[in-house]
Amino acid sequence: MNDRIAARLEKLRDKMRQRQIDLAIIPHVDPHQSEYMSDHWHLREFFSGFTGSAGTLVVGLDYALLWADSRYFLQAAQQLEGTGIELMKIAMPGTPTINDYITSHLKPGQKVGIDGMLFSVNAYNELKHKLESKGIKLISDFKPADGIWEDRPELPKNKIFIHEQRLCGQSCTDKIAEVLSRANEAGADSTVVCALDAIAWVLNLRGSDVKYNPVFTSFLYLAPKGSTLFIDEDKVPADVKEYLDANGIATAPYTALEEFLLNLPAQSRVLVDPASSSSSTSIWLGDRCVTGDSPISLLKGIKNPVQIQGMIDAHVRDGVALVKAVMEIQKKVSSGEHLTEMGVAKLLSDYRGRHEYYFDDSFGTICGYRGHGAIVHYEADESSDAVLKPEGLLLIDSGAQYLDGTTDITRTISLGNPTDDERHDFTLVLKGHIGLACAVFPEGTRGSQLDILAHLPLWKEGKTYLHGTGHGIGHFLNVHEGPHSIRTNENPVTIHEGMVTSNEPGLYITGQYGIRTENVILAEEAFDTEYGKYLKFRTITMFPIDIDLCDTSIMSDEEIQWMNDYHKTVRKTLSPYLNEEEKRWLDNATRKLSRNSEHIL
Amino acid sequence: MNDRIAARLEKLRDKMRQRQIDLAIIPHVDPHQSEYMSDHWHLREFFSGFTGSAGTLVVGLDYALLWADSRYFLQAAQQLEGTGIELMKIAMPGTPTINDYITSHLKPGQKVGIDGMLFSVNAYNELKHKLESKGIKLISDFKPADGIWEDRPELPKNKIFIHEQRLCGQSCTDKIAEVLSRANEAGADSTVVCALDAIAWVLNLRGSDVKYNPVFTSFLYLAPKGSTLFIDEDKVPADVKEYLDANGIATAPYTALEEFLLNLPAQSRVLVDPASSSSSTSIWLGDRCVTGDSPISLLKGIKNPVQIQGMIDAHVRDGVALVKAVMEIQKKVSSGEHLTEMGVAKLLSDYRGRHEYYFDDSFGTICGYRGHGAIVHYEADESSDAVLKPEGLLLIDSGAQYLDGTTDITRTISLGNPTDDERHDFTLVLKGHIGLACAVFPEGTRGSQLDILAHLPLWKEGKTYLHGTGHGIGHFLNVHEGPHSIRTNENPVTIHEGMVTSNEPGLYITGQYGIRTENVILAEEAFDTEYGKYLKFRTITMFPIDIDLCDTSIMSDEEIQWMNDYHKTVRKTLSPYLNEEEKRWLDNATRKLSRNSEHIL
Repeated sequence: MNDRIAARLEKLRDKMRQRQIDLAIIPHVDPHQSEYMSDHWHLREFFSGFTGSAGTLVVGLDYALLWADSRYFLQAAQQLEGTGIELMKIAMPGTPTINDYITSHLKPGQKVGIDGMLFSVNAYNELKHKLESKGIKLISDFKPADGIWEDRPELPKNKIFIHEQRLCGQSCTDKIAEVLSRANEAGADSTVVCALDAIAWVLNLRGSDVKYNPVFTSFLYLAPKGSTLFIDEDKVPADVKEYLDANGIATAPYTALEEFLLNLPAQSRVLVDPASSSSSTSIWLGDRCVTGDSPISLLKGIKNPVQIQGMIDAHVRDGVALVKAVMEIQKKVSSGEHLTEMGVAKLLSDYRGRHEYYFDDSFGTICGYRGHGAIVHYEADESSDAVLKPEGLLLIDSGAQYLDGTTDITRTISLGNPTDDERHDFTLVLKGHIGLACAVFPEGTRGSQLDILAHLPLWKEGKTYLHGTGHGIGHFLNVHEGPHSIRTNENPVTIHEGMVTSNEPGLYITGQYGIRTENVILAEEAFDTEYGKYLKFRTITMFPIDIDLCDTSIMSDEEIQWMNDYHKTVRKTLSPYLNEEEKRWLDNATRKLSRNSEHIL
Repeated sequence: MNDRIAARLEKLRDKMRQRQIDLAIIPHVDPHQSEYMSDHWHLREFFSGFTGSAGTLVVGLDYALLWADSRYFLQAAQQLEGTGIELMKIAMPGTPTINDYITSHLKPGQKVGIDGMLFSVNAYNELKHKLESKGIKLISDFKPADGIWEDRPELPKNKIFIHEQRLCGQSCTDKIAEVLSRANEAGADSTVVCALDAIAWVLNLRGSDVKYNPVFTSFLYLAPKGSTLFIDEDKVPADVKEYLDANGIATAPYTALEEFLLNLPAQSRVLVDPASSSSSTSIWLGDRCVTGDSPISLLKGIKNPVQIQGMIDAHVRDGVALVKAVMEIQKKVSSGEHLTEMGVAKLLSDYRGRHEYYFDDSFGTICGYRGHGAIVHYEADESSDAVLKPEGLLLIDSGAQYLDGTTDITRTISLGNPTDDERHDFTLVLKGHIGLACAVFPEGTRGSQLDILAHLPLWKEGKTYLHGTGHGIGHFLNVHEGPHSIRTNENPVTIHEGMVTSNEPGLYITGQYGIRTENVILAEEAFDTEYGKYLKFRTITMFPIDIDLCDTSIMSDEEIQWMNDYHKTVRKTLSPYLNEEEKRWLDNATRKLSRNSEHIL
């Protein structure tokens, strides 16, 4: 029996009994709906011992259940051992959704307790609607950890700093005016913002509260007569305070949001984005709440010319660092030096870190050798860390936060003697990558329409990958951002000129190898015809794609031409920053690919 | 002044005043949401004089407005002349939607009158919601024509007949059981059906009340304890009456639906499809109404093996008729005989009509020579009917209703000396057609994901077509049917094995020519892998695609191969039904296409 967890759950049940709550839901979420969050919000881990990046704990008075997805079936089973918590395997036959489970197990009149701050407006509404249909009550101000979690980590106190206009390209005054004008069109006079990257973008401020994401813990209220940033004052240095004052933005404690919203005048109309905002904000606002898509999300997704140039520059410097790192990896492997997956990750960070604009990695490097490459969210640790040999495929997915842009690149590299299957599968993935890279489409096209271009070569052989094809990428902000995407799921947001996304088809052969080829692509105008404006993608990632893995017998002339054109651009762009040895390496890595012959320089 | 129309509108206004109605909406719809409808329902035409296939009349106490789309701007302007009715050009800058117009012109407390039978549940709800937000009242039992339209055509009295099980492949008892089981899953114990093709499909009955659509005017109530068909008893011959009795289906007058629904027990739960059902049904049912997608739509869309074989056979015989017709067209044109667009349409119907299974054309033949081909919904009449010459492009879109299947095919044919532009554009359209025909995709894929395969070659040159790429096709039923589609718009219905759709990309150069290449494609299993089941399309239309219009210099090897494979299948399939001269014609029309050389036999 895991006594520590059991004891915590018993304390929680005492608390539930005091408020006559029959069931508590503890999600792995913070009040900002963040992908990554600070330790302060690891409530689900505290009460269950389970450390996965997704999964929800449900606690009844004499049972507890944890919903986890297939990535975590094994890990959750191990970590829950002895806690008395039962694992619910998401999407497996017989596993109900949490909401379905609750409505079929609770009786009318019983009570469910949640912390409304940890549910988005959408999630809250769905739950509430479901519970109400069965006469079950929802208590939304239940704070599971209060009074139980004694050594709970504090919220980060890291200082925030200004993201200079020469780097971000638009003043925060301009941005606020644009956001408020769009809020106005939606019938609101003001807006409250919970998403941390949205706040950082509007204010041109950055922080370091969350690993990999240069954001800071806060809420923001924007209104024509004066805006308020809710933030721990220790985090705001004098120059930032001055900057906020100059832009008419007051500060208030992070915890003062509730009182502030409760006290807004009755005639206020505050725009709340239901996907990214805590349900508590809409509950506090009541009739003053206007629900609608965040205007920030779209404005942030469309990069301005300064941001675009920064993203391009960041990818050039990222390519230079990668040339140096991959050269060193290949040297070490071929000379028999000891190098592991974690060693590769460190090498990459070291080379990237040499640039003055480097701030952090943009996510934990995924370096998967052979079978590890087939585990989509693999991150090597001491127990798994594989030693590289001069054979097999190595998948490296990595990126950096630079002050002028964020990068995200995946390459699959042969360490020696690729098999026919490896080359065939690599080429299928590459064909999809090129198909999307070459798309031309009218304004108004959605990512879900484009997705098939990346999937089709795999589908024609009955193969596929189950992750998205493309995600938006922040500008010195979160490496995953919306509102647009390129994936099979419908997303009504269309691709606009100035949006950047990843282009990352893959294929994963369990126990053998993983393949993914990921570049960042920028949507720009192709031409303006009598039929309207057409867009195309420009690939801004600058690093060779492994020619030794290309099977030209299944590539079209156009695909071979694309490879040669891309490699020519990479060579021309990176060479000026390389020494002679590096140049020779790059010349070889970007040599001409041609059909039915050796690839010649 | 057009006195006839003006007098009718004045009578209508008297009627409106009697019921204190300030504005009446008269759509071009029947109580079955039909695409084609009998003259009885031409109310909008009666009150406006406008004969277009779409467009809505709005009548106020001292004004009248007609909303029409761009296809009808010219025609509507001519037909409305002197009526005092103002033309509202849909989707042009400054034109509000009807609902927006009403809410901005009427005051709270004023009343709008409609016939709820002529509004779908969805259309009614949208209107009602909009009006209520402004305090405007909606009267839904206002019958504009009653007492005014004295010589109103009666509803058709055509006899209905049984669609034999050897042709349709499933008994109506089975179908009813399947529909009710699905209604049950949706929380209903019964369902009411308004869509005429849905009724014809469930009951395996056909009629001839609507041109091109073998359906009959009726409503259907399905329930486990006994179903009722609401239909004029004159339409039901003895054998059909016997058949209905044997299947436990009572009959009642067409007009008895209201009383029947009003008198259903309070605990009844009746499924109503909000897209295809009259809003009156849901109003009469009140709390007994369960709103949900029609289960019939999906069941009807997925063809059973007997239907599939029938569709295949129908397309073979359609191809044979077309070979004979197109041969004759080409002979007449080259010999200088007088032949017009309408003459071509007649020829096609004549050749198709020779088969014993021929019932009717499946829609009005679109035969557009040169510039007429660029008018997407062109149907030649005496005033436009062009004489064909041995030059230029001829677009023919036609189809037939056979007892075992429905066809729909478009070919664009060069009558002589094609220009480089014609060949280039024809080949772009063909590349898209082949792209979609060759798609392979996992189960669960939506048509909106596939659409780009047909559009992409055009988009890459900044060109496009604005109609859908593929529509469902009934089995000896409406040539346009849902619930699936292949188009840029999102439609959540996925493509299932056994669904048929059209594959019809096009390009229209105003004043010069129209190009469309349309085949019917059937979704079938491609393979079943560890990643799940994959589907592919089988092209079942059997008629050559004009080789003289193919520019092989912009075709890939795979595209040329597809053409040769398709033509080989067409030749093999049709030849047994042709005489020697026809065979020679077909051999030449399906000769091998090869790159950089004459196309050789």
